[in-house]
Amino acid sequence: MRKIDIFNHIQPDSYFKYVQNLDAAKQDLGKRTSGNPWLRDLDHRFRIMDEFGDDYSQVLTVPGPQPAVLAGPEQSPAIARVANDGLADLCRRHPERFPGFVAVLPMNNVDAAIVEANRAIRDLGACGVEIFTNIRGKALDAPEFTPFWDEMAKLDRPIWMHPSRSSSLTDYASEKKSRYEIWFVFGYPYETSAAMARLVFSGLFDRHPGIQIITHHMGGMAPYFEGRIGPGWESLGKRTSDEDYSGVLSSLKRPHPEYFKMFYADTALFGARAATVCGLDYFGVDHVVFASDYPFDPKPGQFIRDTIAIIDGLDISEADRAKIYHGNAQKMLRLS
Amino acid sequence: MRKIDIFNHIQPDSYFKYVQNLDAAKQDLGKRTSGNPWLRDLDHRFRIMDEFGDDYSQVLTVPGPQPAVLAGPEQSPAIARVANDGLADLCRRHPERFPGFVAVLPMNNVDAAIVEANRAIRDLGACGVEIFTNIRGKALDAPEFTPFWDEMAKLDRPIWMHPSRSSSLTDYASEKKSRYEIWFVFGYPYETSAAMARLVFSGLFDRHPGIQIITHHMGGMAPYFEGRIGPGWESLGKRTSDEDYSGVLSSLKRPHPEYFKMFYADTALFGARAATVCGLDYFGVDHVVFASDYPFDPKPGQFIRDTIAIIDGLDISEADRAKIYHGNAQKMLRLS
Repeated sequence: MRKIDIFNHIQPDSYFKYVQNLDAAKQDLGKRTSGNPWLRDLDHRFRIMDEFGDDYSQVLTVPGPQPAVLAGPEQSPAIARVANDGLADLCRRHPERFPGFVAVLPMNNVDAAIVEANRAIRDLGACGVEIFTNIRGKALDAPEFTPFWDEMAKLDRPIWMHPSRSSSLTDYASEKKSRYEIWFVFGYPYETSAAMARLVFSGLFDRHPGIQIITHHMGGMAPYFEGRIGPGWESLGKRTSDEDYSGVLSSLKRPHPEYFKMFYADTALFGARAATVCGLDYFGVDHVVFASDYPFDPKPGQFIRDTIAIIDGLDISEADRAKIYHGNAQKMLRLS
Repeated sequence: MRKIDIFNHIQPDSYFKYVQNLDAAKQDLGKRTSGNPWLRDLDHRFRIMDEFGDDYSQVLTVPGPQPAVLAGPEQSPAIARVANDGLADLCRRHPERFPGFVAVLPMNNVDAAIVEANRAIRDLGACGVEIFTNIRGKALDAPEFTPFWDEMAKLDRPIWMHPSRSSSLTDYASEKKSRYEIWFVFGYPYETSAAMARLVFSGLFDRHPGIQIITHHMGGMAPYFEGRIGPGWESLGKRTSDEDYSGVLSSLKRPHPEYFKMFYADTALFGARAATVCGLDYFGVDHVVFASDYPFDPKPGQFIRDTIAIIDGLDISEADRAKIYHGNAQKMLRLS
């Protein structure tokens, strides 16, 4: 069965050369990105992919940090252009391997981000765009991002939402939290969940009911904490004395739990079977898409292999399995 | 079938009178605790409990904030004593309703906390003690708490671990995070997960393999992010440049994911069925205990009712269901 793996990271040579000398990149890439040799080794990637047959293909994006973290608003647009040009080139050269790519944007320069989203989608053929859960600590429902959301609704393309460490540089950096890379293991899904909540309660889905946001790692904490989202949040406002939240829920057109299920979610749960069942139960088969997060597995290919084993073993119809593996992605990403 | 609900909150009159005039309590109780009338209304509680028959009973503790947040180290021991005396009195007067209670401790005064743990368990008959996921922002693996863990291992009684807002007062209070009470819905389970990780990686379970820690809300994020804990954390150290974590995993006696399953978890998931299945799959039937978190449900009794419906509907044997409802608790809490 055809398998479109919709969230994978790659570092085009041109992009790597461009960013490696940036000060922020030197700090961060040293450990996380340059430290991972599989991000740039195309031959190795193809050998790994071959294990899964011709049916398997990867939608590509560059790894973090996002352009807004790598540079200020003057330089970040150029970083995004180099990344997206490099990704488009890889897809042109290997259309069977890479049926599409996800553009990154300079979100600390919203005007430029809108220009680049249009260029990447219209001129380069990007399937959609990737944003991070916060832009240097600024939440995605900040008023300055409103034109971005409006534009994406017009473009009608999916938005990949990746957790961001940039806020963790401030919020998880305290001795209490940052130890043992908790910011990565638990902080990332927390960031995703917080971003989802901000978008829901700020009314994004009422303004743009058709917007498609793909949350990484199966919706962050939403599926497991469905009860906290639902009955837990029914009392929104009762735990706060310095701000009045009493009108938030009634300002929304629908019951608030429904909006959390309007997100899409990918299967990048690093081989967790029961969690995949829980996430699928929450979002439903039309809102779950296959992804492995290659090459951020301890052994390259491990997450592809384990995720396929889990999806193959799900007690669902073949038609539903096909939706997860490729059907939903084909529709959303407009792939043939 | 007998149902011992092991995590419920109540406010004995004596305790309420004692704490309501504390400065910290005035701030916090105003919104969260005094704001909940069901914490003190015993007749109302009994009417709710009657719906679930004679088989249903509640293990009690007081609501937060913890003594360490309510007062400094001179006064917090007295607060804990008043709370525990009040809880013991309720259990003595209503043994059929309340088969036991969980003592709170003045954790900002570790010597006094150890004295109070002994007094509560030996003299008052407490089933165990409750701690919070951090003590005014101090993590539970801080060296000053080592004597506490050693003492609890000696006492061989379970430790209820409740998420704490006290760190959130600093960490989630930024504009970016605290909006919409995200600190409560997602921040609480994040706090639980971070505390679990600190205890695991600091080697607590190697020093005290028999220690029983009951994590509220079904183990925080651990079950859903089993993949991040396992293969995700295999690369511990690769994402950090300013500290050397390369020896942490090899310093542990067992593979690190096994320790996360040494925690116990309660079913207080506010009516989330698929998550309950996921959590039970993760911890196993011997490590899951029935709890509803009464009376923090939007409609009193709702979480008891919904949680029972979920457990009754689990596809497990009656013997396993009995373990969750009462068998595990009877053993751990030493209840007849």
